[in-house]
Amino acid sequence: MNYREASLKKHADWKGKIETVCRVPVDSREALSLAYTPGVAEPCMAIHGDVEKSFELTRRWNTVPVITDGTAVLGLGDIGPEAGMPVMEGKCALFKAYGNVDAYPICLGTKDTEEIIKTVKIMAGSFGGINLEDISAPRCFEIETRLKEELNIPVFHDDQHGTAIVSAAALLNALKLAGKKIEQIKLVINGAGAAGIAIAKFLLKLGAKDIVMCDRKGIICKGSEWLNPAQKEIAEITNLQHKNGALADAMNGADVFIGVSGPHCVTKEMVKSMADKSILFTCANPVPEIEPADAKEAGAFIVGTGSSEYPNQINNVLVFPGLFRGALDVRATTVNTEMMIAAAKGIAGYVSENELTTEYILPYAYDKNAHKAVAKAVAQAAVKSGVAKLK
Amino acid sequence: MNYREASLKKHADWKGKIETVCRVPVDSREALSLAYTPGVAEPCMAIHGDVEKSFELTRRWNTVPVITDGTAVLGLGDIGPEAGMPVMEGKCALFKAYGNVDAYPICLGTKDTEEIIKTVKIMAGSFGGINLEDISAPRCFEIETRLKEELNIPVFHDDQHGTAIVSAAALLNALKLAGKKIEQIKLVINGAGAAGIAIAKFLLKLGAKDIVMCDRKGIICKGSEWLNPAQKEIAEITNLQHKNGALADAMNGADVFIGVSGPHCVTKEMVKSMADKSILFTCANPVPEIEPADAKEAGAFIVGTGSSEYPNQINNVLVFPGLFRGALDVRATTVNTEMMIAAAKGIAGYVSENELTTEYILPYAYDKNAHKAVAKAVAQAAVKSGVAKLK
Repeated sequence: MNYREASLKKHADWKGKIETVCRVPVDSREALSLAYTPGVAEPCMAIHGDVEKSFELTRRWNTVPVITDGTAVLGLGDIGPEAGMPVMEGKCALFKAYGNVDAYPICLGTKDTEEIIKTVKIMAGSFGGINLEDISAPRCFEIETRLKEELNIPVFHDDQHGTAIVSAAALLNALKLAGKKIEQIKLVINGAGAAGIAIAKFLLKLGAKDIVMCDRKGIICKGSEWLNPAQKEIAEITNLQHKNGALADAMNGADVFIGVSGPHCVTKEMVKSMADKSILFTCANPVPEIEPADAKEAGAFIVGTGSSEYPNQINNVLVFPGLFRGALDVRATTVNTEMMIAAAKGIAGYVSENELTTEYILPYAYDKNAHKAVAKAVAQAAVKSGVAKLK
Repeated sequence: MNYREASLKKHADWKGKIETVCRVPVDSREALSLAYTPGVAEPCMAIHGDVEKSFELTRRWNTVPVITDGTAVLGLGDIGPEAGMPVMEGKCALFKAYGNVDAYPICLGTKDTEEIIKTVKIMAGSFGGINLEDISAPRCFEIETRLKEELNIPVFHDDQHGTAIVSAAALLNALKLAGKKIEQIKLVINGAGAAGIAIAKFLLKLGAKDIVMCDRKGIICKGSEWLNPAQKEIAEITNLQHKNGALADAMNGADVFIGVSGPHCVTKEMVKSMADKSILFTCANPVPEIEPADAKEAGAFIVGTGSSEYPNQINNVLVFPGLFRGALDVRATTVNTEMMIAAAKGIAGYVSENELTTEYILPYAYDKNAHKAVAKAVAQAAVKSGVAKLK
C-alpha cells in the first residue's frame, strides 16, 4: 500500500486530526452565568490568589502544547512551521488517544533560539507541560536545557529523549533474548545528531560502558577537528579507547548497532563483521540503514526499525503519551532521568519474558495498556525522586 | 442565586471547560501509518509546496487562539495570565458551542506590547484567525493595529469591536422602538477606554453624528490636557460642539446613554434630565452604572445591561462566534468595517419588528440560529468587500 498517497487523501477528507470540544453546558442563561460571566470571576480570583489553583480550576492540569519550528520534521528536514502541522496534529491525536492528554499543536515561525525560548516561556502559564518536537540540532539542546532550567513544569524534547527511551527499552529486551548484559556489550550508534547523542547519554545512564558514535565523517573521537560542540561533549564520554576510522571499523565486532542516520549506509558485510547474536535497530525514516531482510540474511539476530511495516517498530509513540500522562497525574515539576529510566523499564517490562521473541521485543504502539504501564511507572518515579507536587 | 460561589464549585468539578479530542482512527498499525508516519510526510510536503494548503490538510481552517495577557479580565483588572484562564476557556467553550470554531486559550506571561505582537506573529501560521481578549488600553490599540497590518488572517480584539458591534445592534433595534434615527440622536458614552472608544468610532461609521464621550474626569473635549493619545484622537471626531463639564451635563437632553464604565455612576436625576424615550445601556460588569429598576423608575424607555440577570443583555457572546465562523468559512484575510457592520445588522435583524419590545431588543445569546445569521451576514460582507479567498 502506498501510505503517502492514501494519507494525503485522508488528510484532505479529515480537514484536521484533532478538534476542541466544549465540556460544559452553555445553552441557557443560567449555564452562561456559571461557565462565563458573572460567575467566572470567582475562579479567576481564586487563581489570582494562588496560581497553583490554575491546575484545579482550568484544563491546565491536562494540557501540553506540541511545539515545533518545522526545522527537522520527520526525515523531511526544514520544511517550515505550516508544513510541520500534519505531524504535530498527528502527535496531538496520539497524545489524546493513548495518554488522554489535551495537546495543542503550535508551529512557530522563527528559527531563532532565543525567540523560541522566549515564546515558550511566555505561553507556559497556560500549560501543564511542554513537548518540543522536530527542532533541529544543535538549537534543540540549548532550547530544551534553558526551558528545563527556567520553567517549573515538565519540558521534554521528544526527538531526543522519546527516541532514547524507546531504543533503550528495545535494547533491554533484545539483550534478554541474546543473553548479554548492557555493561558488557560493544555498542555503535550511527548518526550524531539530537537523537543519537540522546541515545548515547541515556544508555550510559543505564549502564552501557562501551559506546562508539559515528557520523557522516566516521567515528567520533575526542580531538577530531570536525566535531560540533554537542559532539565534542559526547566524545568525552564515549569511545574511551579512542578508535578512529569509518562506520565499518566501528561495527567490526560490535554487539549492537543503533542507527538514527540515513538510508542504506549499512552493508551486509558490516553486519557479518558484528559479534554473534547481533542486534540492529535501523531507525532511519522512511528508508532504514539496511533493509531488515538483508540484515537478517547477513546473520543479524534481532532487527528493529522505525517503520510500522516491519516487526519491532522502535517508535517513540510508545513513550510520550504515557510519560506525560504520568508526569501530569502527579503534577511533576520536570522530567528527570529517574522518570525516563522508569519509562524505558516500563515499556520493556510490559512484554513478559514468556512473550518475548526476536520479532516481538516491544509492545505495539496501539496497545493502550502499554501506555498505562508507562504512565504508572513514570508517576511513581516522579514521586520517589521528589519532583511530584501530588502523591 | 450566588453565581460566583456556584461557579467556583462547578469549575472545581469540571476541571476545564474545553478539551482536545482525536478525530481520526489511530488504533491499528495501518491507521497509524496514515495519520502519522510514514504517510503524514505527503500532506507535509504538499503544504511545503503551497502554504495555502495548510487550510485544507490541517485544522488551521477552523482554529482561533483566544489570546490575553490577563491585564483587563472582566471587571477584575490586571489579574495575570493564569487567573485569566477561566474566562479564556469560557470564551473557547462559547466559540465551539455557538460558532463551531476550535478555539485554544493562550494566556501570555508578558505585558510588553512588542513581545505580545511578536509572540502572536510567531504563532500565527498555526491558526486561521486571532482573537485578542482582555488586554488593557492603550496597549490593545497598538497590538491590534499592528497585527492587522502584519498578518493576513482575521485579527479581532473582542473587547473593542465585539462590544461595539453588539451595542450598535442593540441601539439599532432600540431606535426602531423609540421612532428615532441614528443620524439625529444625541449620544453619550461613558468610559473612554478600549470599549468606549471602539463603540464611538463604530457608531460614527453607522451614521451617528452627535456623540459626547465622558471619562472619570468628565466630558472629553478637544484640547483638554488630561487626555491620553487614544482619547485625544477620539476628541477630534466627537463632541463637535466642544462641550465641557461633568457626566450629568453631557446627559442633559441626551437620547442615548451607553456606559462601559463603573458601578452606580449614573443617578435617577441624570436619567430624568434625558430626552423623551431615553435609551440606556449600562454595561458595567458586574454592577451596572445604574440599577435597571431605578433607571426605569426615572423614566427610561429602554434599559439594557451587560448581565444575564436583567432583560436586554448586551453581550458580545452574540458577536464573536458567528463573526469568526463567517470569516473562517470564506477564508477572509482580515475583519473589516463592512464585516463588522454586517454583524451588527445581522444581530439586529434577527429580531423581527413584530417581536421587538422594550424588553427584547436583542436575540438571546444561547439562540444558535442567531449566531448562524451573524455568520452568514459576515461571510457575505467579506466576499462583497473583496477580502475573502473562498466564495
